[in-house]
This record gives sequence, C-alpha cells and structure tokens, in this order.
Amino acid sequence: MTSSTPVAPTRPALRKGEQTRVAILDAALELASRDGLEGLTIGLIADRMQMSKSGVFAHFGSREDLQIAVVQEYHRRFEQEVFFPSLQEPRGLPRLNAMFARWVTRHTQEIASGCMYISGAVEYDDRPGPIRDELLSMVLAWRRALLHAARQAIKEGHLRDDSDAEQLVFEMRAMVLALHHDARFIGDTDAVEHIERGYARLIDSHRAPASSRARRETQTAR
Amino acid sequence: MTSSTPVAPTRPALRKGEQTRVAILDAALELASRDGLEGLTIGLIADRMQMSKSGVFAHFGSREDLQIAVVQEYHRRFEQEVFFPSLQEPRGLPRLNAMFARWVTRHTQEIASGCMYISGAVEYDDRPGPIRDELLSMVLAWRRALLHAARQAIKEGHLRDDSDAEQLVFEMRAMVLALHHDARFIGDTDAVEHIERGYARLIDSHRAPASSRARRETQTAR
Repeated sequence: MTSSTPVAPTRPALRKGEQTRVAILDAALELASRDGLEGLTIGLIADRMQMSKSGVFAHFGSREDLQIAVVQEYHRRFEQEVFFPSLQEPRGLPRLNAMFARWVTRHTQEIASGCMYISGAVEYDDRPGPIRDELLSMVLAWRRALLHAARQAIKEGHLRDDSDAEQLVFEMRAMVLALHHDARFIGDTDAVEHIERGYARLIDSHRAPASSRARRETQTAR
Repeated sequence: MTSSTPVAPTRPALRKGEQTRVAILDAALELASRDGLEGLTIGLIADRMQMSKSGVFAHFGSREDLQIAVVQEYHRRFEQEVFFPSLQEPRGLPRLNAMFARWVTRHTQEIASGCMYISGAVEYDDRPGPIRDELLSMVLAWRRALLHAARQAIKEGHLRDDSDAEQLVFEMRAMVLALHHDARFIGDTDAVEHIERGYARLIDSHRAPASSRARRETQTAR
C-alpha cells in the first residue's frame, strides 16, 4: 500500500489537519508492513513525513495510539476491499465464495508487503497489551464474518445440514495462512493454484446434495 | 525447552567445552523462542549464562553464527522428535500419519514457546541473508520429507493413483499453521480437534478405494 492508495474519495471534504492525519497513517501502514508494528516509531514517521516529532504527536498522542490507529486503518481497508463488496452477492455460498476469493486476491497483491493480521499474530502472540487486543479483535471479527456466511450457506441449503461451519472456516483460514507462508517466505507461486484446488475440494465435501437443495427451495416457495 | 531437556544421553562423552556449547545453545533456544531469533544477542546469552561476552564469543564467533546454530539445533530436535521415530512405521500411509501426528503433538507442546519455523518465516520473510537461508532450507527439508512420504503412500496403494501429493502436503501444512495461529494467538483450544477432523477428511478424500488397494497387494504378492 503506497500513499497513492485512494483514501480521499471516501472522505471528500477533509480539512488540512485530517489530510495530514491520513497521510501519516498511510506512511505508518507502509512502515509497519515492512518492519512490523513494533518497528514503528514516531521518529521514523517524522523522518518519512519530513515533519517534526511533535508534529506527529499532535495527531497521535503516543506511539501506541499510532500503532492502534494503524491496525484500525488496516482493518478498515480490509473490510472495504474484501468484506463489503462480498455483501452484494446473494447470501449463502455465493457470498462465502466471494469473501474467500477477494481475501485470496488481496493476499496475492500483498505478497510484497505481507498481511498485518498474520505477521501481527506472530509479533504479538506473547506480548499482551492494547495492540495485541486490537489485532485480536480484528482477526476475530473477520472469523465471525466468515462463520456467519458459512452458517447462512447451510441455512440456504447450499451446504449440507450437518456441515460444521467452524470446521469449514478453520480449513479456509488454514489455507490462507499457507498461501501467505508459501508465497512470501518460500517464494512458491504454486500456492495460489493449491489454495484454489483446496477450497474447491473443501466446499465440495460440504456441499448439499442437489436433491436437498431443491427440496429446500420448494419449501421456501410455499 | 529448558536446560533440563535431555541432550546428554545422545552425546555421552562431552568434554567441558562441548558441555558449555550445548548449555549456551539451550539458553539461546529458549531466548529465541521468547523474543525471536532477532531478539537473540550475545549480551543476553552472557547474562543468562553468567558468563562474559568473550566467553560466549569463544564458542560462537558471531551473533549470526549463534543464530544459525540455534536454527540447526532446533531442526535437530525437531527431526529427533518428529521425523526419525516416524520412520519406524511401515512406509506409506502409516508413516505419513505418524509424521503428522507427531508434528501436531509437538505443536500442542510448543504452544507456550511457539514454533521457530513459523515465527522465523514471519521474522525473515523480507530479511534476506544467511539466517533466512538456513531457516528456509530446514522448512523445505521437512516439506520434502512430507512429500516423499505422501508419494510413498500413493505408490503403496494406500492413497489414490491420481492423488496430488503436493496438494495434500500443502493442506497438511496449512492446518498446522492454523493450529499454531489459533492456539497461540487466539488461544482457541478447539484447534486441536479441528486439525484432527480436517486431517481425517483430507486423507479420506485421497484414500484409494479398497479394491485398488487389494489389487496392488495381489500384484506385489506375485
């Protein structure tokens, strides 16, 4: 993500101070992607922005405030790119598929910078505090959204009645972790093909037989 | 892993210098598990060992040498715990199952300290150099061992002829990444159950039909 990422269009009438805040966040997101959230310092941001440290402090009261704002901004962009557009798909399997496909696409675009949720999990897994709490709540929010979509797919009769949504979402998330690991650490470009085939097989193993789907539709039509 | 981990039995006649080297490695492994490989410094080790820095340097010429030795020692223990005992199982699916089961067990025991391969991948994914190279070669060695075992399981007729060993191993590794993530970052103890059910389903989807297995055994018996 560079400072050319379009943020302005969704916030058309930013005042000067807000523009600076957004620009600081952009720079901080980029630095955190490169060096981790713990690598983020007010000094580095000030250098990058050609501002004084006190200028940065005027927008973010402390280093921790800035780190938390970076996590929240990352999450906002994730939702805008992955979650909200998927809601336009019909509820059930089409929406779950869209969420997964957009998530994978975002990962393949993020290979150079890495995913803050994944790198953050390792950075903060044994470092309690507000930043870990913030990261965790974002990761859990996304897991809940996936679970909700999977349960809707069961309810709609797209997936089997006895499908275990938690198990399905565990395996979806597992493959995304492997995609990130293989593409970014091993440099293995086959990972994208593997995740597509793995997801297809996973969904097939949970898919409702055509007969039960039709029965459900008949019931709904009554 | 504490300094009480039995290393001595496999090296019965250690000279004093070697004993010290092993003790330094023990302490370094513990520190690297807590703070990451990049958190490892000669100064910290010297403190922990109540030695002088030059005493540590006498055994490891540089911080980087020590970091690489830690990666190699971690790998040696991983092989001793996970890989070598699995080789006692019959070749094919029993051996692949044993490798996976021991790997999962090691992870559940490692929740407090974390897995160096996984945390190292995030720590070094954008940090080229000899430590990344060492970590990568260890991760690739384990992936090759899994692939080899999966291909043997196909050859032995335990898994289907048209099974894709690379795809199978990708999904195995994915679930281990998720186990580590969920148990360590989210603190979700259901992950162990999820990985067991996920692996059972994965293997079932690759399992050769009983008839082809029997045919293979007949051919072998001829």
